[in-house]
Amino acid sequence: MVSFESDYTTGAHPRLLRRLVETNREPLPGYGADPYSARAKEKIRAAVGMEDAEVEFLAGGTQTNAVVISAMLSDCEGVIAAQTGHVSAHEAGAIEYTGHKVLTLPQEDGKIRPETLARYLADFFSDENRGHMVFPGMAYVSHPTEYGTLYAKSELEAISEICGRYGITLYLDGARLGCGLMSRAADLTLPDIARLCGVFSIGGTKVGALCGEAVVFTRHNEPARFLTSVKKRGALLAKGRLLGVQFDALFTDGLYFRISRHAVDMAERMKALFAARGFRFFVDSPTNQQFVILENGYMERLAEKIGFCRWEKYDADHTVVRFAASWSTTEEDLAALERALESV
Amino acid sequence: MVSFESDYTTGAHPRLLRRLVETNREPLPGYGADPYSARAKEKIRAAVGMEDAEVEFLAGGTQTNAVVISAMLSDCEGVIAAQTGHVSAHEAGAIEYTGHKVLTLPQEDGKIRPETLARYLADFFSDENRGHMVFPGMAYVSHPTEYGTLYAKSELEAISEICGRYGITLYLDGARLGCGLMSRAADLTLPDIARLCGVFSIGGTKVGALCGEAVVFTRHNEPARFLTSVKKRGALLAKGRLLGVQFDALFTDGLYFRISRHAVDMAERMKALFAARGFRFFVDSPTNQQFVILENGYMERLAEKIGFCRWEKYDADHTVVRFAASWSTTEEDLAALERALESV
Amino acid sequence: MVSFESDYTTGAHPRLLRRLVETNREPLPGYGADPYSARAKEKIRAAVGMEDAEVEFLAGGTQTNAVVISAMLSDCEGVIAAQTGHVSAHEAGAIEYTGHKVLTLPQEDGKIRPETLARYLADFFSDENRGHMVFPGMAYVSHPTEYGTLYAKSELEAISEICGRYGITLYLDGARLGCGLMSRAADLTLPDIARLCGVFSIGGTKVGALCGEAVVFTRHNEPARFLTSVKKRGALLAKGRLLGVQFDALFTDGLYFRISRHAVDMAERMKALFAARGFRFFVDSPTNQQFVILENGYMERLAEKIGFCRWEKYDADHTVVRFAASWSTTEEDLAALERALESV
Amino acid sequence: MVSFESDYTTGAHPRLLRRLVETNREPLPGYGADPYSARAKEKIRAAVGMEDAEVEFLAGGTQTNAVVISAMLSDCEGVIAAQTGHVSAHEAGAIEYTGHKVLTLPQEDGKIRPETLARYLADFFSDENRGHMVFPGMAYVSHPTEYGTLYAKSELEAISEICGRYGITLYLDGARLGCGLMSRAADLTLPDIARLCGVFSIGGTKVGALCGEAVVFTRHNEPARFLTSVKKRGALLAKGRLLGVQFDALFTDGLYFRISRHAVDMAERMKALFAARGFRFFVDSPTNQQFVILENGYMERLAEKIGFCRWEKYDADHTVVRFAASWSTTEEDLAALERALESV
Repeated sequence: MVSFESDYTTGAHPRLLRRLVETNREPLPGYGADPYSARAKEKIRAAVGMEDAEVEFLAGGTQTNAVVISAMLSDCEGVIAAQTGHVSAHEAGAIEYTGHKVLTLPQEDGKIRPETLARYLADFFSDENRGHMVFPGMAYVSHPTEYGTLYAKSELEAISEICGRYGITLYLDGARLGCGLMSRAADLTLPDIARLCGVFSIGGTKVGALCGEAVVFTRHNEPARFLTSVKKRGALLAKGRLLGVQFDALFTDGLYFRISRHAVDMAERMKALFAARGFRFFVDSPTNQQFVILENGYMERLAEKIGFCRWEKYDADHTVVRFAASWSTTEEDLAALERALESV
Repeated sequence: MVSFESDYTTGAHPRLLRRLVETNREPLPGYGADPYSARAKEKIRAAVGMEDAEVEFLAGGTQTNAVVISAMLSDCEGVIAAQTGHVSAHEAGAIEYTGHKVLTLPQEDGKIRPETLARYLADFFSDENRGHMVFPGMAYVSHPTEYGTLYAKSELEAISEICGRYGITLYLDGARLGCGLMSRAADLTLPDIARLCGVFSIGGTKVGALCGEAVVFTRHNEPARFLTSVKKRGALLAKGRLLGVQFDALFTDGLYFRISRHAVDMAERMKALFAARGFRFFVDSPTNQQFVILENGYMERLAEKIGFCRWEKYDADHTVVRFAASWSTTEEDLAALERALESV
Repeated sequence: MVSFESDYTTGAHPRLLRRLVETNREPLPGYGADPYSARAKEKIRAAVGMEDAEVEFLAGGTQTNAVVISAMLSDCEGVIAAQTGHVSAHEAGAIEYTGHKVLTLPQEDGKIRPETLARYLADFFSDENRGHMVFPGMAYVSHPTEYGTLYAKSELEAISEICGRYGITLYLDGARLGCGLMSRAADLTLPDIARLCGVFSIGGTKVGALCGEAVVFTRHNEPARFLTSVKKRGALLAKGRLLGVQFDALFTDGLYFRISRHAVDMAERMKALFAARGFRFFVDSPTNQQFVILENGYMERLAEKIGFCRWEKYDADHTVVRFAASWSTTEEDLAALERALESV
Repeated sequence: MVSFESDYTTGAHPRLLRRLVETNREPLPGYGADPYSARAKEKIRAAVGMEDAEVEFLAGGTQTNAVVISAMLSDCEGVIAAQTGHVSAHEAGAIEYTGHKVLTLPQEDGKIRPETLARYLADFFSDENRGHMVFPGMAYVSHPTEYGTLYAKSELEAISEICGRYGITLYLDGARLGCGLMSRAADLTLPDIARLCGVFSIGGTKVGALCGEAVVFTRHNEPARFLTSVKKRGALLAKGRLLGVQFDALFTDGLYFRISRHAVDMAERMKALFAARGFRFFVDSPTNQQFVILENGYMERLAEKIGFCRWEKYDADHTVVRFAASWSTTEEDLAALERALESV
């Protein structure tokens, strides 16, 4: 059955697999000290437009969030996130496991509004009892958000400015960053993000890799002995080449961006299929994930024809479901979706 | 330059890569719920000779140790390990990071002697002050050990019996288990290990996979909600197929064992090259890692000809170095080693 | 200056101090194994009406919450609490430091409404993605709450029933429990609480002790090796007599209840002084803490005459302040408050 | 029965109790912001001979070790300690609970020899694999040690110099520091210790207080927001006066030193009673704890006459037992001990 369940239902973009095959027999140092990792870092620095950025690779998204956040926060600090943020809701308490609180703020379309952040910080730092509270040490935003939405440049600038004012690191979780950059709605570039954030990730897993996230530190702020911190958290791969070779391929000839553009294009056509039939969207997403509200009976029937992901209850009779596109989504997949929508 | 630096310098056994390529476009559920993972588990149960064993996959070795140990220990417990055990010495404190102590015992050739364990436990449980001490909740052994040595069947039986008497889980770290099973010196089979241990791992990374360790629970003792525990520790891969497909291939047609046998055979020939030239071994290893004592000046010159790993200082003038063989070690590699030894 | 800043501004009720002096030279076993601790536990069991309840003593409130919650939760679990709950807001992340998330729910007058809890749990356990979420393992309520309010018997019964249905422990933080029990508005007795909760604390620090909280486990559910867990968290006092002697005194001749009644009576008269002058209350508290809304200029002038605690911003021009009564609040203190209110 | 079981079997020195009684009704700010705490800090600074030392108070010994060590170590660091160190052996894993490893070194009479430390550090920092190991960030010594022994000035100077060379903090656990300072064998003064250590504790619990340890930071190295770190670890007492008043009394008119001298004097006489009868000592202790080797049958009979503590097994037939003196040990106690030794 054709599946739009997620952007990680298929394997890797063929070019990445091919490079893994081609480089397979080369003896390389372990733990990320291989030349492919070095080259990938160089290419990411170029794409980011910051030649002194520090770049590291990790295997998974939750892992990246937990490692980066816990390694960068100091003892009394927690991380601010939207209530719907991945670190707040869907990481099984991975941040708290490191001993740090997620300080949740209300969200709008998956985003933290700059005013909300500003008010929270102003209140916190004027609270006489703050010595008994968790200090905000970092603000976490996801871009695209968990609902596929995007921060406007002005919004991220405002958030960045607020963080700077309070000496707080701004961390952008880019698990699907490519789809954010290649969306027709995007007005943030990769160099913009590097300029505005203290640290951010460039997701590979959901953008054509078997696994892998790049972390970019933009303020010479990579924690000392970071690889030991990674090891301590069980996150250091012996065959670091697995990440290096893939990211080297992703950042060669703009492949990362082409994969992302393809996924976004496919999602737009998917969205059009739903819109043309009068379906309601839970949120207006300009990226590769679309959240549609389905009546429960209809949902069950549709699930027999096509794969998708049940996201959350909407009301007693309706459910929010997710349809995602990826590097592997084809014309045939879209046609199958159309047939399914026609026939249910 | 030809390298014997480790058994993770090259990529994956070609058969694993081929299967990743062949299955790449199939849409599969994420997080290990794919049919390849299911099939791999079934094959591992068969190889282990225990049809109700519980099997899970993780990405790395330190990760596996940290996840398994922390998820299985109760609050007041620590894990017993040899001073040279991987969890004691070379995981950057990953176990302690989970809030549990590693209780180190003296070792002999990398192994815990049963008598040492028995005496420690007898002393502990007769100590009137034990309420202020860390309770031993698990015993960790590596097989092969960090020095390539193997437990005899009688030794593991004795350790298993001691653990059972005190209600302690016996955990065997099998990062290189295949090489232990395929060594000509081995008298422990996979079913022996399953019978004697409460939980053990079957390492993939060092036996031909890009990454991946299988964990086998043999007493219906997989912790409740284990996958959530895995997620909480940042160790759940979205594309679990990466592990499932590889382990499915490793346990098809005995590939895991053939890879291991090849590595051990190559190591024996490597060992013979050293022995024939009168080199001293730090320990008598019957598996794929050989630890040779080199005079420092000689070591530096040899390092210009061939790749190996500096392990630890032996004395002021000598260093213990490691030469490892793997699935990818070839006749040509051995010839290059011989030439290097001849010419330095 | 007379102070109503908190219920911990003065030392211990004189009877407790006297008992510390009287027993001071007796040689007693350490770490809570002394006969005063044993006797205090017996008296608490009697007061609680549950002869097989397990009772332990700890030094502080945040400590008690962190120790009890972390020792009782299993790996994947978090604790549910109101957003205003002490564990959520004012313990500097002590719960998260133990690796567990505080799952916050909206509150009303500092309380969790049973419907809110029921809906949260129903939603959680029907969420298909809950394997990636923190499982609720405990519900935390404070009684009185941080705003001095009380759960009605019907409310706590409903919450207890909901927790039971989902197999979740109900933990009641009784840092000021006496004031809850002795309030004229209370309809919950100590045996009610023992019957409805899986575990609860009986606060000493804010009810006349120098320090000390009793923890009561009501379901034979004291974690195994609990004192070792306490030690591991740095919370085991060598001279456990300090807690035992004080709780023995508190639960002799109903002293705990008389102290509490005195504090509540004084608070009611305090409340009347404010009400008579038309002050607004932030919440209608029937216990020993009163939360009054003061205009900022007035607040500053009043602060020169009498001690109180600035609680939180109400709006741009007003602040919520706290006035608390305790065992040591006297007629003269109230007269001083009245004079201050008259003269500002 | 007269007891020498420990130095915490009786309550507080009467002068401390008296001061608690005298100050009991004064309304004071909580959480250590009271004037008695301030005054006690001032007196400690004077006694230490370092006017800019930072001083904080905590309740217990294990708590102090866990809070100080975890708040001062950075992410990848562990603490070096003797195998017999309190943090290694008898704190139920409190340090590991904070996520940091205790790096144990061999000991001699409970002490770390400077050469042992120097060799360990030299080896560590020349180890090519140290990126996969726990970095030593602190060295922990106890003075007196757990066996009552003392570091010579030259030894502590050597250790301090070694730590300084490697940029490692030297932490001295002074749970019984007074007895170390007042021993006739001591050649280290309080100012010496302040000069040589980066941080140290001055124990109250075992030197006449109900509870309480002072922590002295000597290099302007008190961690930022330390009180929040204390709160986060559940270690902040609401009625901080309990610690402040006691330490103020201890450091008034040299009481701390007089108490210590008394305990040491009594221990010397106790030691003489054993020595005169030909008993063997496990270690030659010049402080308030004496470790005697008793034949097991004798031990059982003696235990019916006098209280002492069974420390550890010596051999199949003998046990090491501890006799401790404190502020409350009297002539009558010694006479009772003598009678007991005569009559068994």
